Amino acid sequence: MNREVYLDNSATTKPYPEVVEGMVEMLVNHYGNPSSLHMKGIEAENAIKKARESIAKALDVKSGEIFFASGGTEANNMAIRGCALANKKRGNHLVTSTIEHPSVLNTFKFLEQEGYRVSYIGVDRYGRVNLKQLENEISDQTILVSVMHVNNEVGTIQPLQEIRNIIDSKKSKALYHVDAIQSFGKILFTPVQYGIDLLSLSAHKLHGPKGSGALYVRKGVRIHPIVFGGSQEFDMRSGTENVAGIVGFGKAAEITFDNFNHGVSVMDENKKYLEEKIKETMDHVVINGWCDGQNAPHILNVSFLGIKAEVLLHALEAKGIFVSTGSACSSNKPSPSHVLAAMGIEKPCIESAVRFSFSSFNTKEDVDYCVEQLAAIIKQLRKYVRR
Amino acid sequence: MNREVYLDNSATTKPYPEVVEGMVEMLVNHYGNPSSLHMKGIEAENAIKKARESIAKALDVKSGEIFFASGGTEANNMAIRGCALANKKRGNHLVTSTIEHPSVLNTFKFLEQEGYRVSYIGVDRYGRVNLKQLENEISDQTILVSVMHVNNEVGTIQPLQEIRNIIDSKKSKALYHVDAIQSFGKILFTPVQYGIDLLSLSAHKLHGPKGSGALYVRKGVRIHPIVFGGSQEFDMRSGTENVAGIVGFGKAAEITFDNFNHGVSVMDENKKYLEEKIKETMDHVVINGWCDGQNAPHILNVSFLGIKAEVLLHALEAKGIFVSTGSACSSNKPSPSHVLAAMGIEKPCIESAVRFSFSSFNTKEDVDYCVEQLAAIIKQLRKYVRR
Repeated sequence: MNREVYLDNSATTKPYPEVVEGMVEMLVNHYGNPSSLHMKGIEAENAIKKARESIAKALDVKSGEIFFASGGTEANNMAIRGCALANKKRGNHLVTSTIEHPSVLNTFKFLEQEGYRVSYIGVDRYGRVNLKQLENEISDQTILVSVMHVNNEVGTIQPLQEIRNIIDSKKSKALYHVDAIQSFGKILFTPVQYGIDLLSLSAHKLHGPKGSGALYVRKGVRIHPIVFGGSQEFDMRSGTENVAGIVGFGKAAEITFDNFNHGVSVMDENKKYLEEKIKETMDHVVINGWCDGQNAPHILNVSFLGIKAEVLLHALEAKGIFVSTGSACSSNKPSPSHVLAAMGIEKPCIESAVRFSFSSFNTKEDVDYCVEQLAAIIKQLRKYVRR
Repeated sequence: MNREVYLDNSATTKPYPEVVEGMVEMLVNHYGNPSSLHMKGIEAENAIKKARESIAKALDVKSGEIFFASGGTEANNMAIRGCALANKKRGNHLVTSTIEHPSVLNTFKFLEQEGYRVSYIGVDRYGRVNLKQLENEISDQTILVSVMHVNNEVGTIQPLQEIRNIIDSKKSKALYHVDAIQSFGKILFTPVQYGIDLLSLSAHKLHGPKGSGALYVRKGVRIHPIVFGGSQEFDMRSGTENVAGIVGFGKAAEITFDNFNHGVSVMDENKKYLEEKIKETMDHVVINGWCDGQNAPHILNVSFLGIKAEVLLHALEAKGIFVSTGSACSSNKPSPSHVLAAMGIEKPCIESAVRFSFSSFNTKEDVDYCVEQLAAIIKQLRKYVRR
């Protein structure tokens, strides 16, 4: 049997065993509805409280600033539409970048249909937002600036402090939303450090379950809910809570942050090792998004020129190695990466771009096996390719 | 130690062991992102497909008509706002009843803020919607009629066929949405039978996990999505799928429907037995919502006059018996039941109303124990109450 090497951790991760245990405990023994007034409800409510504290601790914020949601996509929707609904009397202009996740970009497209004006800030060759353009676009009508911390396809880290400074220098009252779904658990930061008002998180990117996420809302910031009902999550997100999912999320954050430095150095070393080996042993490769060692520790985007990414993906799969072409989040509609296109990457590079994404579960041996297989596959495939 | 008797199954249920097993299997062994193009993604996608088929089979509809969501609240939000967004050029009038769940009523309140007009149809003493009023309210501006199948507090079953007939008799093109969260798995029906266009379901009311639900959308009906992103769920509900939750939901539906008649007769017998025993052995009790044996098989709402419902709830809790005062879905904000008030029930009855709700896990011995403790508690409490 093949060795199995999972290098698609930016798509989703394998839950920690303790996460699964914690979820089972809730499903089997503490299945009450947190809104119930009796002990079974209180047990469930307390478990949610504990998870909220774990997430808050990881971000060094107050637990009352954390609101659970059904995932990162919903958290992004909540932040952006929640801000738009709450502030429409103050202004109708919103700002984002061209390389955001579809859950951000498509929310903005919906708001454009609803009559809001949206500016999409371009990025440079490395995926960093154009700060000059950002400065020019912010006006007294701007109610939101939304950027991602780490890009999911290429790992670019945005200059969050510089963006905050620009908002301040323009004396703008715009809220500052950061999609931190790919950075939470990979980069140590706090929303307070960068003056962030709204921050989106997802559980399943750090060994928690799918179907669980959260939005940090800075105390004093008011946004409008976008799901209506029984007023759960302090009226920010109605609906009976996904108790097991929330508990799993809390546990995943605890474990990740208790072992933060070790986990990140494992990812970073393996990523750098893979990069070196690829550069050392293979021709006609281009690293996308690389920028003076300032990238996220877990994402490596590489173009193997002349080889279609999807072909390479399936050839690697046959050897037990799982990678991605661009983003997995666009519901298997293979289309050219909007991120690489926005970065001005040339078509041959875009078509051959593969994303390797790491977790702390990966080993040096995984990388060795991957490089070995990759070299053989590329050699084989290039035989059939016109150069 | 006390016997434990859980009679709050309309708030939430204990997951079937097979549901938990199925979820663990996904979390541990098939953790891929369904949008990933490789085998790990396909495994997850196939598991979702199977769950979709289980839900579709239970409703006797096509699996392409089932869209997963994060729960019943979201399914109700999707149906109502999705219809409003898709049809705003055709009309701005919507119709619902006064005894709907908060996830329906508060969604309509939001739509009123957004400029839609909503008619709230009253109910009779038994909780049945006023069909005459419904007929009068429907106009050519009406784009949606939304009613619940079974009321969550009193178990009233709405006359779904009569409502359909009225929509037809008015030659209205309004969509017909039914919140079936309390009836799915309790009453055998199909949406096709009643000409329903949109039907909301929740997993955790039939021994599935919290955080999972679905919306049936009749083929040919178009509604607008309300969560935007990577186009999952055929573009109806973006966001990485809660794979474990969806698999748990599918499993719960399978088991429930494989044992439908047995499960329902267990609930119905125990409910009727409790009702008889209460009537037989206790004074000053009123059954709310009862209507010629036409109620749902699992909900019994009883007022023990002179005793505050919350006091009785906690006294029963001390004996290991878990019940509810009205609905658990309003995030432990105890307020007088809007359902009983709309039914014209008098204040002393509302304040003393307790809901007993059954699952197929309950036994006759549970009911015997409950009646015994109830009798003793009521005797004790009434000593201190002025009559």
